[in-house]
Amino acid sequence: MQQNEEYCNNIRNILFKICYDGSKYHGWQIQKNAITVQEVFQKALKSIINQEFDIKGCSRTDTGVHANMYCISTKIESKIKCENLLSAMNRYLPEDIAVMECREIPIDFHARYSCKGKEYIYKIWNKKVRNPFLNGYVLHYWYPLDIELLNKAAKGYIGKHDFTSFCTLDNRDKGNMVRTVEDFCVSEENGLVQMKVRADGFLYNMVRIMVGTLLRIAQGKINWDDIPKIIEAKNRSKAGPTAPACGLYLNKVFYEEIDL
Amino acid sequence: MQQNEEYCNNIRNILFKICYDGSKYHGWQIQKNAITVQEVFQKALKSIINQEFDIKGCSRTDTGVHANMYCISTKIESKIKCENLLSAMNRYLPEDIAVMECREIPIDFHARYSCKGKEYIYKIWNKKVRNPFLNGYVLHYWYPLDIELLNKAAKGYIGKHDFTSFCTLDNRDKGNMVRTVEDFCVSEENGLVQMKVRADGFLYNMVRIMVGTLLRIAQGKINWDDIPKIIEAKNRSKAGPTAPACGLYLNKVFYEEIDL
Repeated sequence: MQQNEEYCNNIRNILFKICYDGSKYHGWQIQKNAITVQEVFQKALKSIINQEFDIKGCSRTDTGVHANMYCISTKIESKIKCENLLSAMNRYLPEDIAVMECREIPIDFHARYSCKGKEYIYKIWNKKVRNPFLNGYVLHYWYPLDIELLNKAAKGYIGKHDFTSFCTLDNRDKGNMVRTVEDFCVSEENGLVQMKVRADGFLYNMVRIMVGTLLRIAQGKINWDDIPKIIEAKNRSKAGPTAPACGLYLNKVFYEEIDL
Repeated sequence: MQQNEEYCNNIRNILFKICYDGSKYHGWQIQKNAITVQEVFQKALKSIINQEFDIKGCSRTDTGVHANMYCISTKIESKIKCENLLSAMNRYLPEDIAVMECREIPIDFHARYSCKGKEYIYKIWNKKVRNPFLNGYVLHYWYPLDIELLNKAAKGYIGKHDFTSFCTLDNRDKGNMVRTVEDFCVSEENGLVQMKVRADGFLYNMVRIMVGTLLRIAQGKINWDDIPKIIEAKNRSKAGPTAPACGLYLNKVFYEEIDL
């Protein structure tokens, strides 16, 4: 017990708030034969503090998905100042990953398990001609979108539901398929359409299927008020296709214990 | 004469308004051993209309410089509808170049010689930490910029002056070094600083040296009210360094004959 306490006294729990362009990465989580954000982040940290540590990311993200805010917690023994760790990390990391913030947090904080909710943004370039500067950062969808209609339809997502219809079937989500969507709003500015969704959690591909379904509604292939029926069906085939990864951004992560 | 008229009757002058991410190109103008926007554009057009033509770009641009609006005029014999030409070009061109507009213009219009003025924007990411999504699209400058001071200083550029001090010396600009700067304004929004300059024409690297000089002023190495003196010196070494190409965008091109 005493030994444990002593051990704990030397350990600091560090939060990293990062931001990354996911274009070149196979998502967050480390894997064989493919470069991931976690691997690159871990290597950078290792080269600075040269100790054993275990990093906890707030979420899995898919290949090509971006993050405006992604949180990582890691317990380290190093006494390095957070301020110095931040600038050292930004020197070691490639230009498509940046550490925005680095600070000490309570020892029991865990980037994934402490997370109370997340917000995603899906970006669509809604003009006839593509935008060369947004290539890989938006979905280019050239048929005009009726923002009002999409907002009306998206209200159907809000609430506590079993989102089986909005989940890619794999071995990941065998458990509870119930999530609470707190908000879903669609806006447009100068041809850039943004769909912003906040929930207590998301199933695998959930946002991308929600977006794909709204695009089917825009095309008149699904009725605007059919979303509650699709949810009720608990059947993936009733929803629209999975929208491409490149338009998706993890935008915010919410915690109770700490403000971000 | 008659032959000439007949010839003229078959010829159409076509304007292309394009937009490109210059990151991967060695500027506009065709050259040996390096890929340029002109070469790629020409190949795409050739594969569609399969005729001889000569394309006129509105301006040279440097390696890595971007364009929100770039104008090209070309005389062709093909009867292809402009609407079809536009969509065919956008299919043939790579994703970092897009044709925004394509239309027939008076036969004597020349994208370069008819040009009455241009507007450039220089973008600076002015936060301590880089923005992974703007890598290659801005200059990252982390010391705080005093926008008011820069605007005050930039007023010194406005007017009709000999801009020798703001021109990289090479064999290009042997002639008239006088240009009229109509406006120069600096603005900031969420850490993105934009310097917008409009003139009847620009010397080689002129905008980038103007920006480099403003950054020297921000650093206190040049006095804010020294710009008129630097202009008067007609000596490149009195001005600041040439700011990197990646932050520069040709933003608008002005003509008298046509509205864009």
